[in-house]
Amino acid sequence: MNSAEGQAAQVLVERKYYTFAAPPEEMVLDCGVRLGPITLAYETLGRLNADRSNAVLILHAFSGDSHVAGCLREDDERPGWWDNMVGPGKPVDTDRYFVICSNILGGCSGSTGPSSVNPATGKPYGLGFPMVTIKDMVRAQKHLVDHLGIGTLMSLVGGSVGGMQVLRWCADYPEMVGSAIPLATTTRHSAQAIAFNEVARQAIMADPEWNNGDYYDGSGPAHGLAVARMIGHVTYLSDSAMREKFGRRLHRSTLSFDFTGDFQVESYLHHQGKKFVNRFDANSLLYITKAADYFDLERDGASLLVNETLAGVPFLVVSFTSDWLYPTYQSRNIVSALKKNGSDVSFCEIEAQWGHDAFLLPNKRLDGLISGFLDRVYHERCL
Amino acid sequence: MNSAEGQAAQVLVERKYYTFAAPPEEMVLDCGVRLGPITLAYETLGRLNADRSNAVLILHAFSGDSHVAGCLREDDERPGWWDNMVGPGKPVDTDRYFVICSNILGGCSGSTGPSSVNPATGKPYGLGFPMVTIKDMVRAQKHLVDHLGIGTLMSLVGGSVGGMQVLRWCADYPEMVGSAIPLATTTRHSAQAIAFNEVARQAIMADPEWNNGDYYDGSGPAHGLAVARMIGHVTYLSDSAMREKFGRRLHRSTLSFDFTGDFQVESYLHHQGKKFVNRFDANSLLYITKAADYFDLERDGASLLVNETLAGVPFLVVSFTSDWLYPTYQSRNIVSALKKNGSDVSFCEIEAQWGHDAFLLPNKRLDGLISGFLDRVYHERCL
Repeated sequence: MNSAEGQAAQVLVERKYYTFAAPPEEMVLDCGVRLGPITLAYETLGRLNADRSNAVLILHAFSGDSHVAGCLREDDERPGWWDNMVGPGKPVDTDRYFVICSNILGGCSGSTGPSSVNPATGKPYGLGFPMVTIKDMVRAQKHLVDHLGIGTLMSLVGGSVGGMQVLRWCADYPEMVGSAIPLATTTRHSAQAIAFNEVARQAIMADPEWNNGDYYDGSGPAHGLAVARMIGHVTYLSDSAMREKFGRRLHRSTLSFDFTGDFQVESYLHHQGKKFVNRFDANSLLYITKAADYFDLERDGASLLVNETLAGVPFLVVSFTSDWLYPTYQSRNIVSALKKNGSDVSFCEIEAQWGHDAFLLPNKRLDGLISGFLDRVYHERCL
Repeated sequence: MNSAEGQAAQVLVERKYYTFAAPPEEMVLDCGVRLGPITLAYETLGRLNADRSNAVLILHAFSGDSHVAGCLREDDERPGWWDNMVGPGKPVDTDRYFVICSNILGGCSGSTGPSSVNPATGKPYGLGFPMVTIKDMVRAQKHLVDHLGIGTLMSLVGGSVGGMQVLRWCADYPEMVGSAIPLATTTRHSAQAIAFNEVARQAIMADPEWNNGDYYDGSGPAHGLAVARMIGHVTYLSDSAMREKFGRRLHRSTLSFDFTGDFQVESYLHHQGKKFVNRFDANSLLYITKAADYFDLERDGASLLVNETLAGVPFLVVSFTSDWLYPTYQSRNIVSALKKNGSDVSFCEIEAQWGHDAFLLPNKRLDGLISGFLDRVYHERCL
């Protein structure tokens, strides 16, 4: 394939923005604060069919954005974050489905978040941004879906924090859920997951350049943010993944006997930390991790997933053997709750060695499961 | 028991110091640098018997010190770090054994380390301290054991980084090893363990108060050190331990919707971070974690534990089911290597939910194993 053909095969997408909740119609958040106006950055792929029944909402994970697949420009170096899964002829087939993906509320890739300008002050919100929850993120997405004129989503798909949003949609707007695919996720953040998030937050807040969240006219807490990201990356891999990927291999020929880093695993973490600082806002990390920590569909012993409206709704729940951030037992809790509804639940634990990262990596087994599941739902609902 | 009796039952110990390797007889380190004079802080409990055959060397873990058991003063609030295991009538019975424990080279509790004064400059070494390895630490301990006039140690006991020292003793001075008990340890630091250590180091080095290791006339990198310690504590527990100990319990009655910390697991980490800053030197953390990362008895496919001098030597190797920092498969590697020697190896994986911390916590099963093992060795060697 020559370069011209390669470019011709690219799917071009456009980032769009939807603004709502302008005063005095602000959105009331879980914390009680009224927030507005709110903008969501979003992208769509494929075409909405005549009866608006083929929409698939993709919910991104913690550090993702609306750019799920395709390229924003012809000379884009990299396609969207889930380009292996989403596109023409791919498991989430944009020749058939109308795919929507929006940057979450509290994010930093076009949607309203702590780095956005607070209209009341003319300056970035910083810590003046109210705490948002997964429920608030989903509430904002509901505004967007309504705006697009879609009454029922054929499916909702998301992994990790995206999976939490999938489940929150099911709990809060079950009548709009045609089917759902929560991947590598949980009904409630565990103490260990909270602990890792809190250490990441402390790393940022310990950086004097964080300046209590007010750093947008300076360089920002680059060191703290890099450390926070490194912590994240250790939890996204696994003992076996790291052994396989790096082992004890050095990145030079001999030990340094200093603190510049000897092992390839160290270089990998340094690289991930640096890369992240260039694309992500430290305050957004604080807000989104906190939203994940607050996430709990099982408070007071009753699951918010138990809802008769979900009876018969098809679910595909997937976990990965080496994912120790959201281990399989947490996916089984999702399955148990849904079965009480008489939902039509398929569950698969995929043998994969890449830890939590597995849900984002190319995987034929996952491709086949998602492709087959959506195909069945499409034939039942859309034909 | 009244207060007077309680005090009477206390074992009083004294911190002693041994200095050696004074120029021009410096110790040559693995990195090639000559270091001297070197001081080791150490404590002893019990009495050395007439034929000097009842000595048990205890090797402390990363953040431990020479104060293994008993009290340094009558009004000490806390006894040594392994007081549940070491003392009169306890598994490591000081009525019978002569116990030695020294602070490691590179540490900050009386032994020569980066916070010690460099005699060449009259100022603390800081990063001028040479990199030390587990082999160097053991080499220094050998000087102390020679100084105490002990030719063969009845046993060596240690967990975690202490276990690495036990194994290094076996590799380097097998003729001095009467028996050995490596607990919750490994023959080589895994990529995941290196990753956690590197993130902890980066947290310290990201703190501007670290000042390239030169902070001894200032406040020091308290924030970075606290974050580093929090990372450590997440790895010392486990998913199940954290679920049991904290779950999602709040430390106030409602969510804060701010970043002050909501969950008990967060308060626990904050507390551990703060406590550590008051007692530990940040540079020592850098040096000791690096020594652990460099630790590898299996380089080039050959195990340094394979040594015919260890034939018939009794070993008790112990791992803990929920320890994911040094998982059981790593202890099995120790066992495999030792069996090639014809060493007399007992291995036990103890069912325990407290993660890596389990080796330090009171545990009747561990007590029984160590007590029985030492009793047998004592009867074979000392009576």
